Amino acid sequence: MTPLLRRSFVVIGRTAAASADFSLEDLPGSSGRLDVLLRCVRAALLFSHGLRTDVRVYLVLRGGALAPRVLRVDGATARFIRPDERSLALLVQKTLRGAPQLPAGEFVEIKPGVALAAGDLDCVLADLGAAVRFVLEEGAPDLRGSGLVPDEHAAFFLGDHLGFDEATRAELAAIGATAVSLGPLSLHSDDAIAVLSNELDRLQANRS
Amino acid sequence: MTPLLRRSFVVIGRTAAASADFSLEDLPGSSGRLDVLLRCVRAALLFSHGLRTDVRVYLVLRGGALAPRVLRVDGATARFIRPDERSLALLVQKTLRGAPQLPAGEFVEIKPGVALAAGDLDCVLADLGAAVRFVLEEGAPDLRGSGLVPDEHAAFFLGDHLGFDEATRAELAAIGATAVSLGPLSLHSDDAIAVLSNELDRLQANRS
Repeated sequence: MTPLLRRSFVVIGRTAAASADFSLEDLPGSSGRLDVLLRCVRAALLFSHGLRTDVRVYLVLRGGALAPRVLRVDGATARFIRPDERSLALLVQKTLRGAPQLPAGEFVEIKPGVALAAGDLDCVLADLGAAVRFVLEEGAPDLRGSGLVPDEHAAFFLGDHLGFDEATRAELAAIGATAVSLGPLSLHSDDAIAVLSNELDRLQANRS
Repeated sequence: MTPLLRRSFVVIGRTAAASADFSLEDLPGSSGRLDVLLRCVRAALLFSHGLRTDVRVYLVLRGGALAPRVLRVDGATARFIRPDERSLALLVQKTLRGAPQLPAGEFVEIKPGVALAAGDLDCVLADLGAAVRFVLEEGAPDLRGSGLVPDEHAAFFLGDHLGFDEATRAELAAIGATAVSLGPLSLHSDDAIAVLSNELDRLQANRS
């Protein structure tokens, strides 16, 4: 029996709100498309009637006041994670509002399993430790059948609806993240996470 | 070059509202979990910056007043399909409100690409024509590598958060729907559609 494969998903929101001043009545229009990232939280953490305890999601919030900040949801300790976008938006809004001041570069738990850090990718990289890093890129070699997924901890970096900017792409290359793709079509970030999770579920079932 | 594989996804909402009297401020609590079905519309029809023109989604609405009704979204003609749940809920609410009376068993287009029928699975089956039918079931043989996907038109029946009731399961068996699964874990319906779509994209790319 191999150890449980830990999974981290890091979604980079180029414009997603790092502060609570957005409206639940118009998320796409008022939050810098935080809605894209909220859907990733659902896809990463929830399956049918269950929460994935081996998964962490990092939302890199680069938009608006207080940016950059990183919101981390840990499946091992999170509670009250609902699948609908409005409930997730409310959870994130309360978390962002609950921490106007944060020590630089350090994750502070604001709600059960939901932590916030003042900082950017550097906070995430420090927190990921020895995870094997991958970056999702259209046209890169297929992850399926690649044999690249490690036994212990894999971290996947994904762009939002705008994709990665060049500086981020360079930073991810510099830390040695392996570019992989998931098939012939470029998917929404949450669908990419669903496909990835299924692939990892299958690998894990075959290995154990 | 094989013909384009057409795909239909049929999601059966055991309690999902067939009438417009739900609140956008509390979709899960007021719509019989229509939110589950809305997320399926997004997963089925949208990819990164595009709409899948070869896909139709059928939502079988079995809850509340006016049930059963079937809402059909056709990727070939639909417009203004946005990814966020609230926008999708508004589209569905307007559609349901736009058709208090419908001729029995016949799809009537209410909004561009969005049609409604008074009826249940029978309307869907008539509309699907010669599509090869599959039903998603936990523990059934894996679709991947099965060689079962046809070249022309595949229809997939999925349950909601409650799964299929026994009568529906029997009806799907009676029409010869092949039970298939997508891996070791039971997924949310929208994630199942994302995984299925990726599998079909891969098959189609390999065949063309």
